Amino acid sequence: MPKFKLTLAFDGSAYHGWQSQRSGRGIQNQLEGALARLFPSAPKVQGSSRTDAGVHALGMVAHFEVADGEFRMPLRHLPLAINACLPEDIRVLKAARARTDFHARFDAKGKQYRYHLWNHPVMNPLLRARAWHVPRPLDLAAMREAAPLFVGRHDFRSFTANRGGELKDAVRTLSRCDIQGRGPSITLVIEGEGFLYKMCRGIAGTLVQIGEGRFPAQEVEVMLSRHDRRVAGMNAPAHGLVLQKVFY
Amino acid sequence: MPKFKLTLAFDGSAYHGWQSQRSGRGIQNQLEGALARLFPSAPKVQGSSRTDAGVHALGMVAHFEVADGEFRMPLRHLPLAINACLPEDIRVLKAARARTDFHARFDAKGKQYRYHLWNHPVMNPLLRARAWHVPRPLDLAAMREAAPLFVGRHDFRSFTANRGGELKDAVRTLSRCDIQGRGPSITLVIEGEGFLYKMCRGIAGTLVQIGEGRFPAQEVEVMLSRHDRRVAGMNAPAHGLVLQKVFY
Repeated sequence: MPKFKLTLAFDGSAYHGWQSQRSGRGIQNQLEGALARLFPSAPKVQGSSRTDAGVHALGMVAHFEVADGEFRMPLRHLPLAINACLPEDIRVLKAARARTDFHARFDAKGKQYRYHLWNHPVMNPLLRARAWHVPRPLDLAAMREAAPLFVGRHDFRSFTANRGGELKDAVRTLSRCDIQGRGPSITLVIEGEGFLYKMCRGIAGTLVQIGEGRFPAQEVEVMLSRHDRRVAGMNAPAHGLVLQKVFY
Repeated sequence: MPKFKLTLAFDGSAYHGWQSQRSGRGIQNQLEGALARLFPSAPKVQGSSRTDAGVHALGMVAHFEVADGEFRMPLRHLPLAINACLPEDIRVLKAARARTDFHARFDAKGKQYRYHLWNHPVMNPLLRARAWHVPRPLDLAAMREAAPLFVGRHDFRSFTANRGGELKDAVRTLSRCDIQGRGPSITLVIEGEGFLYKMCRGIAGTLVQIGEGRFPAQEVEVMLSRHDRRVAGMNAPAHGLVLQKVFY
């Protein structure tokens, strides 16, 4: 059966996250609905990641298989064909043939997330659906001191919304955690091999609270060592987060 | 009567433009509604510009007067107080006391508009409400050759949606027209003393059609000299345009 790899972008505002929901408001539901209109075998899709409700993507990856004989269009028409069946807040950016053993989730070597802030007393109305409004001035120097402390191999139990005690393995390796700031528009870039549930939002929320003076920068080391969600900072809201790229 | 100058940002998607409408869907209606909740004299506002339906702003300016004795809060609270009465797609960024003879429209010395394009076969769903999707590759070198031809003092009759024959004075002076490009994200920056109806959108549409090879870059000079809307390019759609700044 021919297998395909899709790269997708979506505005997560209207959805309950990537994973299919009975309500039909999972992004996966929308994609499977579109594929069912193109291929009688109604392919199921497997995504690289489960994004939370409200999280966006510019580089989500997913794979699906089509029954033999069903795929008859030129490959370059596939994104257009799927996009014609999708709502405009979900777009297929690229489609490629994949090896028969390719798996969007298990073959992923790493991911890049970006977290967007708007740091100004008044929110920018053009960014209100995709940046977190942080009204108080942030100490960017403190945030830049703290961010690299997340890089490397750590037990991230203090930064996940899963009940830490029940997690068998909370060790993850981050290769990048830095802050790109320009005026009121600030972006956190977080890259790693894998992520725990709500881990990016826990890191982003903690960095912002460090910027607000709630914790000193060095406290990150203590938080990591304690393996307890209650010692770290808040979860940043979902709508500032973008799954930017998946690496294979 | 105390007079105030407001700087405003708005997402124009849900409105029929700046000017008050009987439908109530003018941005001015929303602002006057908010002021009426704060000041019993229900001040009318005067904007620097009339933006079209769907056009956005990050630096619209407006003024209003409050009846004597009605203004009792510290000035720094005024943006917060008005924002609390506005929908979240309209925000007051700044408020200042103005001289009694200040007029947001007549005192404006110039304006900067920005026109945003997304030049990629597939639209970025996060930008769909504020950039024009141009799917075919653009020749940026041709656009960069054409843009400065708009700078200077010209009769812009060929670039306005007003019936040109009825316009007494279509001479305007542009001080800047340039193209900032980065990957698929391209921005046109247009600055001038004053603008005719839909003039920015006529310039943006013409530059895009030059980028698509529909007209040669030098054709801009011919278009300007003909004083006829039919010889210039198309109007770019409203949702890519932002009123960025007003100069006083």
